[in-house]
Amino acid sequence: MDTEKQVEKSEECDLKSKSSSKPNEHNEPKRAASEQEQRLKMKMSKIKHKVAIISGKGGVGKSTITVNLAIAFAMQGYTGRVGVLDADIHGPCVPKMLGLRGQKLVGGPAGMLFPVTGPLGIKVVSMDFLLPSDEAPVIWRGPLKMRVIQQFLSDITWGELAFLFIDLPPGTGDEPLSIMQLIPDMDGVVIVTIPSEVSQVVVKKAITFAKQLGVPIIGIIENMSGFVCPECGAKIDIFKVGGGKKIAEDSSVPYLGKIPIDPEICSDSDSGTPFIIEHSTSPTTKAFKEIVMKIEHFLENKKNIKRTHTTYVQ
Amino acid sequence: MDTEKQVEKSEECDLKSKSSSKPNEHNEPKRAASEQEQRLKMKMSKIKHKVAIISGKGGVGKSTITVNLAIAFAMQGYTGRVGVLDADIHGPCVPKMLGLRGQKLVGGPAGMLFPVTGPLGIKVVSMDFLLPSDEAPVIWRGPLKMRVIQQFLSDITWGELAFLFIDLPPGTGDEPLSIMQLIPDMDGVVIVTIPSEVSQVVVKKAITFAKQLGVPIIGIIENMSGFVCPECGAKIDIFKVGGGKKIAEDSSVPYLGKIPIDPEICSDSDSGTPFIIEHSTSPTTKAFKEIVMKIEHFLENKKNIKRTHTTYVQ
Repeated sequence: MDTEKQVEKSEECDLKSKSSSKPNEHNEPKRAASEQEQRLKMKMSKIKHKVAIISGKGGVGKSTITVNLAIAFAMQGYTGRVGVLDADIHGPCVPKMLGLRGQKLVGGPAGMLFPVTGPLGIKVVSMDFLLPSDEAPVIWRGPLKMRVIQQFLSDITWGELAFLFIDLPPGTGDEPLSIMQLIPDMDGVVIVTIPSEVSQVVVKKAITFAKQLGVPIIGIIENMSGFVCPECGAKIDIFKVGGGKKIAEDSSVPYLGKIPIDPEICSDSDSGTPFIIEHSTSPTTKAFKEIVMKIEHFLENKKNIKRTHTTYVQ
Repeated sequence: MDTEKQVEKSEECDLKSKSSSKPNEHNEPKRAASEQEQRLKMKMSKIKHKVAIISGKGGVGKSTITVNLAIAFAMQGYTGRVGVLDADIHGPCVPKMLGLRGQKLVGGPAGMLFPVTGPLGIKVVSMDFLLPSDEAPVIWRGPLKMRVIQQFLSDITWGELAFLFIDLPPGTGDEPLSIMQLIPDMDGVVIVTIPSEVSQVVVKKAITFAKQLGVPIIGIIENMSGFVCPECGAKIDIFKVGGGKKIAEDSSVPYLGKIPIDPEICSDSDSGTPFIIEHSTSPTTKAFKEIVMKIEHFLENKKNIKRTHTTYVQ
């Protein structure tokens, strides 16, 4: 039965082979957990900067911003040293946006698993690479999602990276909480919103989430801000303008800038060619590059910022 | 500490007062669960039609469509007999869209709790009515979310309703799964997508989700479809056009119609006045009313459709 297959799939996703373990040990589960924790620490210690991209509401462009951030940093002398973790287990979009649909995680000797390599040597890990087809949903509750995210971090051979960008699903539930727990030395979060008031209400929760978990907030990006008709030049505020800046001011967090609604972004995402490459001289790319500079500046100066505390909610 | 407060909050959200229970019974937890199940069955039996609004990706307009569907049905002779359950625990938007921000669930005799009443007598329940402020996030893992959703259904006095519309967060995780498990006689789901290819990829998973759980699919709505410049009349396809129809055809599920991007929808949502009331003669409202007719037709004929099976994935 289909639903039973789904349950089985969760077992298949136990990425790390258990063949090397000794089954007759009494405290096997505890030891395995401790070993995984060690592997996770070791893997993450090889990645200099870790940045999560979060939002309150969905559909505000987190994945688009994540892949374009990765491309922007890879272009600045970090080819082959940038990674993207697509932590949206139910709706993974990163592979589609980087032209990597249909690819699978690559196996190596001794049960090693490698990310898929995308444009400019970007290393990508996504649930999408484990699914048999587009149609296959991941009908999982929180504990299974926590487990697979843990394995993405601990059991994938990410290698030495300068940057890991983590694309999180909307909200403040299992996936964002798991990531913040598993990476206590997260450099910070980039918060994405659209300017509408409805989105503002929800993005406030994302700000409090980061503050409560003691994760530095790099800043807020106002995405889908305004619209200029390409035919007549009229300014039409589809989702309004200024909401991201307002929320940044109200909440005393940095404002990184705004990115306009641009039909080219949608078609570039659909065709798997990030807009920063495909439309490298457009006003959208120009706006985006200014944001990238601010993020780079934050990361260069991050030694001044320490995570205040790392207590968590279960 | 703030994070501890969050944990405490989960306890406060045990909506049903425990004062009437007998603490010295050995099998108390089992009995309480069974009693809750009975209350849930009883409450749901008084609601004739239950419809969930789901999507693959976030930000496609589920909440907007939910509140406008509720208003449309309330206008058709069901004033006071329509309910909306906002099942998005992390990013509840329904109260804002119905002008009900800052309201609280209403207490009654013997520990009864009533929904907030919105325009046209619509009964609304949302996590938003339990939070102390906009800023407060709900940093909860799946099991707590399952529990509060169960209580929304079993411990709120919904009364006799003709329709309950359930606004679900994106994806195929805890909240959608909980709702499908708790309401086995769900009439069906309305699936919302935007036309982009990225959204199409994810919406396929929502279709499979409904099919695997044996819930009838009422049909697909293509939202944010195309854009007509209000200044020059040029047609600009911001998120493309036709993706929803294509996916409906490819997946052999009914296509309900498309709703254009309209800046008025955003400002109506922000001001808490559903567009179907505020712009009752606009082309968007016209398109929406045709969709409403199809949903009404489905519900009238639903006796022909039976849920095929109700097995679930944990």
